[in-house]
Amino acid sequence: MKYKMRKADCTPFGMQDKLHEECGVFGIYVNEKDVDKISPAHDTHTALFALQHRGQEACGIAVNKNGVIKCHKDLGLVNDVFNQEILDGMPGTMAIGHVRYSTTGLQSRENAQPVCITHCKGNLAIAHNGNLVNAGELRKAIELDGGIFRSSSDTEVLAYTIVRERLKCGSIEDAVLNAMYRVQGAYSLLVMSPRKLIAARDPHGFRPLVLGKLYDSYIFASETCALDALGAEFIRDVEPGEVIIIEDGQMRTMKCDIHCNHTTCVFEYIYFARPDSVIDGASVAYARQEAGRYLYEEDPIEADVVIGVPDSGLTAAIGYSKASGIPYDVGLIKNRYIARTFIQPGQDNRERSVRIKLNALRNNLEGKRVVMVDDSIVRGTTCARLVKILRDAGAKEVHMRVSAPPFLHPCFFGTDVPDRKYLIAYGRTVEEIRDLIGVDSLGYLSLEATNKIAVGARCGFCNGCFSGEYPIEVPDTIEKNIFESGIGENA
Amino acid sequence: MKYKMRKADCTPFGMQDKLHEECGVFGIYVNEKDVDKISPAHDTHTALFALQHRGQEACGIAVNKNGVIKCHKDLGLVNDVFNQEILDGMPGTMAIGHVRYSTTGLQSRENAQPVCITHCKGNLAIAHNGNLVNAGELRKAIELDGGIFRSSSDTEVLAYTIVRERLKCGSIEDAVLNAMYRVQGAYSLLVMSPRKLIAARDPHGFRPLVLGKLYDSYIFASETCALDALGAEFIRDVEPGEVIIIEDGQMRTMKCDIHCNHTTCVFEYIYFARPDSVIDGASVAYARQEAGRYLYEEDPIEADVVIGVPDSGLTAAIGYSKASGIPYDVGLIKNRYIARTFIQPGQDNRERSVRIKLNALRNNLEGKRVVMVDDSIVRGTTCARLVKILRDAGAKEVHMRVSAPPFLHPCFFGTDVPDRKYLIAYGRTVEEIRDLIGVDSLGYLSLEATNKIAVGARCGFCNGCFSGEYPIEVPDTIEKNIFESGIGENA
Amino acid sequence: MKYKMRKADCTPFGMQDKLHEECGVFGIYVNEKDVDKISPAHDTHTALFALQHRGQEACGIAVNKNGVIKCHKDLGLVNDVFNQEILDGMPGTMAIGHVRYSTTGLQSRENAQPVCITHCKGNLAIAHNGNLVNAGELRKAIELDGGIFRSSSDTEVLAYTIVRERLKCGSIEDAVLNAMYRVQGAYSLLVMSPRKLIAARDPHGFRPLVLGKLYDSYIFASETCALDALGAEFIRDVEPGEVIIIEDGQMRTMKCDIHCNHTTCVFEYIYFARPDSVIDGASVAYARQEAGRYLYEEDPIEADVVIGVPDSGLTAAIGYSKASGIPYDVGLIKNRYIARTFIQPGQDNRERSVRIKLNALRNNLEGKRVVMVDDSIVRGTTCARLVKILRDAGAKEVHMRVSAPPFLHPCFFGTDVPDRKYLIAYGRTVEEIRDLIGVDSLGYLSLEATNKIAVGARCGFCNGCFSGEYPIEVPDTIEKNIFESGIGENA
Amino acid sequence: MKYKMRKADCTPFGMQDKLHEECGVFGIYVNEKDVDKISPAHDTHTALFALQHRGQEACGIAVNKNGVIKCHKDLGLVNDVFNQEILDGMPGTMAIGHVRYSTTGLQSRENAQPVCITHCKGNLAIAHNGNLVNAGELRKAIELDGGIFRSSSDTEVLAYTIVRERLKCGSIEDAVLNAMYRVQGAYSLLVMSPRKLIAARDPHGFRPLVLGKLYDSYIFASETCALDALGAEFIRDVEPGEVIIIEDGQMRTMKCDIHCNHTTCVFEYIYFARPDSVIDGASVAYARQEAGRYLYEEDPIEADVVIGVPDSGLTAAIGYSKASGIPYDVGLIKNRYIARTFIQPGQDNRERSVRIKLNALRNNLEGKRVVMVDDSIVRGTTCARLVKILRDAGAKEVHMRVSAPPFLHPCFFGTDVPDRKYLIAYGRTVEEIRDLIGVDSLGYLSLEATNKIAVGARCGFCNGCFSGEYPIEVPDTIEKNIFESGIGENA
Repeated sequence: MKYKMRKADCTPFGMQDKLHEECGVFGIYVNEKDVDKISPAHDTHTALFALQHRGQEACGIAVNKNGVIKCHKDLGLVNDVFNQEILDGMPGTMAIGHVRYSTTGLQSRENAQPVCITHCKGNLAIAHNGNLVNAGELRKAIELDGGIFRSSSDTEVLAYTIVRERLKCGSIEDAVLNAMYRVQGAYSLLVMSPRKLIAARDPHGFRPLVLGKLYDSYIFASETCALDALGAEFIRDVEPGEVIIIEDGQMRTMKCDIHCNHTTCVFEYIYFARPDSVIDGASVAYARQEAGRYLYEEDPIEADVVIGVPDSGLTAAIGYSKASGIPYDVGLIKNRYIARTFIQPGQDNRERSVRIKLNALRNNLEGKRVVMVDDSIVRGTTCARLVKILRDAGAKEVHMRVSAPPFLHPCFFGTDVPDRKYLIAYGRTVEEIRDLIGVDSLGYLSLEATNKIAVGARCGFCNGCFSGEYPIEVPDTIEKNIFESGIGENA
Repeated sequence: MKYKMRKADCTPFGMQDKLHEECGVFGIYVNEKDVDKISPAHDTHTALFALQHRGQEACGIAVNKNGVIKCHKDLGLVNDVFNQEILDGMPGTMAIGHVRYSTTGLQSRENAQPVCITHCKGNLAIAHNGNLVNAGELRKAIELDGGIFRSSSDTEVLAYTIVRERLKCGSIEDAVLNAMYRVQGAYSLLVMSPRKLIAARDPHGFRPLVLGKLYDSYIFASETCALDALGAEFIRDVEPGEVIIIEDGQMRTMKCDIHCNHTTCVFEYIYFARPDSVIDGASVAYARQEAGRYLYEEDPIEADVVIGVPDSGLTAAIGYSKASGIPYDVGLIKNRYIARTFIQPGQDNRERSVRIKLNALRNNLEGKRVVMVDDSIVRGTTCARLVKILRDAGAKEVHMRVSAPPFLHPCFFGTDVPDRKYLIAYGRTVEEIRDLIGVDSLGYLSLEATNKIAVGARCGFCNGCFSGEYPIEVPDTIEKNIFESGIGENA
Repeated sequence: MKYKMRKADCTPFGMQDKLHEECGVFGIYVNEKDVDKISPAHDTHTALFALQHRGQEACGIAVNKNGVIKCHKDLGLVNDVFNQEILDGMPGTMAIGHVRYSTTGLQSRENAQPVCITHCKGNLAIAHNGNLVNAGELRKAIELDGGIFRSSSDTEVLAYTIVRERLKCGSIEDAVLNAMYRVQGAYSLLVMSPRKLIAARDPHGFRPLVLGKLYDSYIFASETCALDALGAEFIRDVEPGEVIIIEDGQMRTMKCDIHCNHTTCVFEYIYFARPDSVIDGASVAYARQEAGRYLYEEDPIEADVVIGVPDSGLTAAIGYSKASGIPYDVGLIKNRYIARTFIQPGQDNRERSVRIKLNALRNNLEGKRVVMVDDSIVRGTTCARLVKILRDAGAKEVHMRVSAPPFLHPCFFGTDVPDRKYLIAYGRTVEEIRDLIGVDSLGYLSLEATNKIAVGARCGFCNGCFSGEYPIEVPDTIEKNIFESGIGENA
Repeated sequence: MKYKMRKADCTPFGMQDKLHEECGVFGIYVNEKDVDKISPAHDTHTALFALQHRGQEACGIAVNKNGVIKCHKDLGLVNDVFNQEILDGMPGTMAIGHVRYSTTGLQSRENAQPVCITHCKGNLAIAHNGNLVNAGELRKAIELDGGIFRSSSDTEVLAYTIVRERLKCGSIEDAVLNAMYRVQGAYSLLVMSPRKLIAARDPHGFRPLVLGKLYDSYIFASETCALDALGAEFIRDVEPGEVIIIEDGQMRTMKCDIHCNHTTCVFEYIYFARPDSVIDGASVAYARQEAGRYLYEEDPIEADVVIGVPDSGLTAAIGYSKASGIPYDVGLIKNRYIARTFIQPGQDNRERSVRIKLNALRNNLEGKRVVMVDDSIVRGTTCARLVKILRDAGAKEVHMRVSAPPFLHPCFFGTDVPDRKYLIAYGRTVEEIRDLIGVDSLGYLSLEATNKIAVGARCGFCNGCFSGEYPIEVPDTIEKNIFESGIGENA
């Protein structure tokens, strides 16, 4: 008899059978008036902790003291990578930080951010959330022009592009602005130079980025929940195509004149972002509740109870309950001690990996017709096991409602959608999926409704992973990891 | 400017301002037929993971292979203390395990369980949940009779008592039974001898203990959620005063003839146990929902939304919502990455320690009259900060409802209630508490209702921490830690 | 192709093919005048570091502050187990410490010392170097009288014996003295009570124990090198059968009136102790040099160079060189970074485990007739590989000289001699051993010479491991580890 | 009373008051015939362990499997950074490895090697021992041409230079050769491309680099002791200015036609290298013995005993003893458990930091005139405390002999000589130094003798740190760490 170590989910907001966001960023410029009130490294640490759901594999903080930049980063959660001693050893008046999800592998430490570079025109630290569509093309041109890459991350491409623009213009902010004309794709970017903190958001505004204020000091963060964690004030979203510069404690702004629609990633509302965040004017929690409402309206069913799959399905379940009048209840309990690795107790019973994370509340399910709401189905394996758990707990019927359309297409803008062959929806009708996961009925949110959930949003949406239609031209395939190139492909 | 490391809550089911359960136990005896299907160390590990909410400070597993007992235990969560290599190095056909909450201190590793002892009459491993009322008395008598103690835990007192009875009788099960006439208090006890696995529950049945079956093998666990995690079958609760022996794969039972009422700890239903567990015939989740219902019936209020404090207040909030017809919604989002130590970002703002753990969902609160349901108020500090967070998020009124009566008295049966001087309810009227925490109205569950929430329970309840009335005679004071005795007290 | 993790030697003073000492002890009582100059935990840490060669598997420190005893101990080297924060958290005015070698196994943490016990007559911490001959007998009697053991170490037997005497007499020092009449064997013992620090050495004085002074404060240590590390003054050896009490800053002494010869373990001089220590009046380094001299006198050879096996053979090699006039040189270089586990690079070549630790200095060996001096041969495997390394480096002849007689018998007094079947000398003539390890000639030190090497020693010697003659009656066999008792042996 | 954590020496071959070498390199190309016998990652690990004395702060291994390069590196000793699981996860047929000493600081992890880069012309891993004289100049030119640097190490400059040459020529080996015309200084370099393993040594041959063979596979290493550890065969030194290419299992060689003298660093013989290594034809151990001989011949003294300071002074002491006829003995015992951090026991007594590392052997010193031989004096602080320890142990006279000339000048070729103001010899006569360290006489090796010690060496020597005369033009000052540039220096 053998036991295998299995990687279990490290995303308390979700489950293994979920997509991964790739990053969260944070930056702070301490106004001279606040130097006794704010320690940028400590506050960045707190903020990264609030953004941890955006990346659990690596994190880092770079601080700036009198123009000298120091960086500490490593693989691990914020609480693993930093401790009191490390933070105390990072005094300064500016900082940027980053949390990252990354595909595993030995090289991955190299991909941790912020990326810090030394340069005679001024040292830089860069933190980036997103994905460039033309990174491969830019990378190859840079390589043929004598550049070398030590990581596979787009951030290094951005760093090169900015530095090369810097050599042609008079300031780092102009360099950032000029770089925006050269790179294509999704980026919410923070750049810390010896004297400036600069934020930039791509012209489509795929990924969120907000501006806040703590006392008299400026803050940038991927989500408003990071501002809340610091007790900071939300000022406004960074606009698509905007460059904001904080210098000498003052804020200035510039705008890139690439004209295109503002298309925030709709999956931020459905799953990625924390429900307590507000993105581009729309509450994430309210969007999820609206998704639940549309789910009922588009696909009503008679049932006795509505439950959500913790944690990401709960808000949509409440919305469904409100719209339908079917009572909401807790149907599944999640083990809050789920850690990154969990030792599987025997291989005979693959259900256990789900049972150890989620257990059914028989009392609320027995003899009932159950509507189970979740935010998405990726591979479908976890889903099928969950359904069995509900039935074992006595559910008479299980009706699944998914607060998003089926995943069918890759994402080119910073989300790690698995290859098509792993997507349960690929090449299958809804009926076939229903059969596979073993539910009595299955309903997905329509694309039309998806576009309406973010009530109050001052933007359109990218829903390419559902529709296959992207706001900008995309390559035919997602590029292979450059570190995996072997003899056959290059000399 | 200085930053202090603060211990933050490590109990995802609760918050720092909560009581602590003291233990969870688990045991398994692998039937000969199942030796290829079950590895007792791995399954105990899985089960302890499901019982982690009952103790986060230390854990341990003892396995029995051909009568030889090996033990691994340490301070830390189950996932910190064990890994694949350690579990693989613990083959056997029986195991017991333990999770523990303990007051911190250098000595605490000594208090980790199981306690393993060698003896010419047979080595033993013992795991125990509960607290003895006459431990001090027994300890002193044992000391004066030549016994020595290496820890401050009651478990060592139990070990001595059992071993000394063993010297007077013919079997370990008789020794356990005889010991039950000598110790008084709460205990749900597992004893592993070279050839037997024995479970015993005190005559009042203060702490839960259940019997289950996995294939043909017997299991004991503090809560049914551990059976569910293994996919095991629930058979029945161990009865108060019962001793169950598993030997040669067969189960036998004996009964201690001390006659008294069955008084399960009512706070197990209110807060300690996992909602998906069933204790002495009553569903924990349903009890919480009932508590919410009584809360509304005893103290109705007009409001726009009912929210629960995650995670332990959620179920009662749903019950309140159902009873009142006031819509239930998510009002507070909990950071799922809370770890045991969190570095406080500056001392100016003590609210932050709450803000980093819980954030308000403005969308669901703004302009609304809010009922906030939580399971208990201990010190009240967290509570007051939470109320401020709700008001900052726009709540027009905040009405707090607590699904338990006020804490006023110590617990002598295994719960770590702080000294009276720290209890917000001690010496204060409800009005005074209301003012202190800053809510518009405050309602506690009545003692009468408390006794009714565990619907279907085949037992009465101990509610001494609320009522001051205990099922058995208790000492005047809780004893001081024996390790803290200095010169003044002994020579 | 597979690679196996191998345990490599963690004893820089020796090699894997060496015997293991079982313990080192240290204690300090800070005089009131010195409280600003001495922190007992920090100084104990320094001293244990100097005694690390006496035990590398576990260590611990117990401090006493106003009669309250706190203890920190764990598996690992002194520098692994302690750090600044832990030591800073252990203020006090007395401390005892312990380093331990122990056979590996899951239970071994339980055997770490000091052993701390609570008792109504006064809490105690006990640290012990040695081995009791009648431990099994005492243990069984205690068990049958209602005692329980949580470890397999003799120290717990000592603790029981002292506590039980304490119940019969008026003071802890009388209890220690009375216990000496009940236990038989080797012990150098430190006992810390709420107000006293007590040292005791068995009537034969098998293991070293010295008294020193730092400023006005008293110190006990296994070896003088610990005093030197602290800059403390050596006062005298604790006498066999003596009990020294430090109370209220003053020293008193008592004597047990068991009459027998003082028989210090001769292998302390040959291998265990640090060469810079002085034991019972004789310099360890000088004893080793004398051993080298006798080796030449008893077994002269013509050769070109004398080399020692680092580190323990070096001093005897110098003695051999001086006596013979054959030049001393460095023939083997030891890798100073040897750690406890070393990953073996492939299984084809078992020589590598030696090569990675020791490399030959070809320049000093090539074409030469080499005398290689080592302190002992246990299993002989390392030895044979070393000889091959010398020959590969061009040695024309290799003559091995061992500064001890052949190991033939077990040690009952605290040394971990392997079972006879693993001893190369058991059942073989010197000629047969010579052939096995592949040397041109082989000479052991005679028993007569062994008894003469400790020049100036005020004692006789135990050489039972060589002669089979022990100063006291010994059992027929070394007892099996009590934790390994299974079903067959007890019920 | 306060206690400070002090960094103690982690260099068992030396002491804190010593210079630091900056690197060691190793590479292996597994011949097809040997793939079942050799695992390159495991063998590189073993070799780095043997080279650990050349760098204790960071280490790394890059392996090549079918052209895909994977790298694992971190701060720490070889045994800290690697374990069985990591090595098992690095299969391949080529590997290079690196150990590094580096100035501490948050950035230092970035400086760990091998440096791995991706490039469309072929990924590369580079490991480098040495220091470039024109690195700053090259770096600035690269930066102004659009390159960015993520570390402060010369290795990244080398990587850029090689890659940029690669863009201009047809093969990686030509790129390496061409790069040699652009960089100036010391480098022993290993480059691993998808299909080739390349070694290069600078035209002066400052740092050692050898070629060896294990079965049919080629090996490169900084020192022969790494070959010995693997049981590999020494073939020859890599020649100054030579480039050796291993491709398809075959070895080829090229030569850079820069003409200059071969000037191996003489301090490799005096201190850096392991005594069992042979560098450019001369035995390191024999060189040290010769240094001892010259020391006596140049500066004879009458004395009773010669001792060496462990470990680096021992061989020269033996040479002194042989030349003088004064008996050699062990005078100082070194604690073999010295770890990287050691907690200082109180600040009153700075001597303790020496005492805990070295203790005098009174027996060999008392009443004697002692010659103490050490390899060098840098700051002199440790030295002065050692002398006091000898006198405290009864030495009647202490005569110090140093097997090198006084340090007076910086090293530009890879050694971390402190700033002049910290060098005891700077601005002082030998008499003044003698007084400062408190010896009766002090003798340094003459520069003339220094040039003669490496008997049999097929090279001249660089002795710039003693003479101030360097084989190539050097800058006025050593450059400041580029990461420490702040606002003042760049925008």
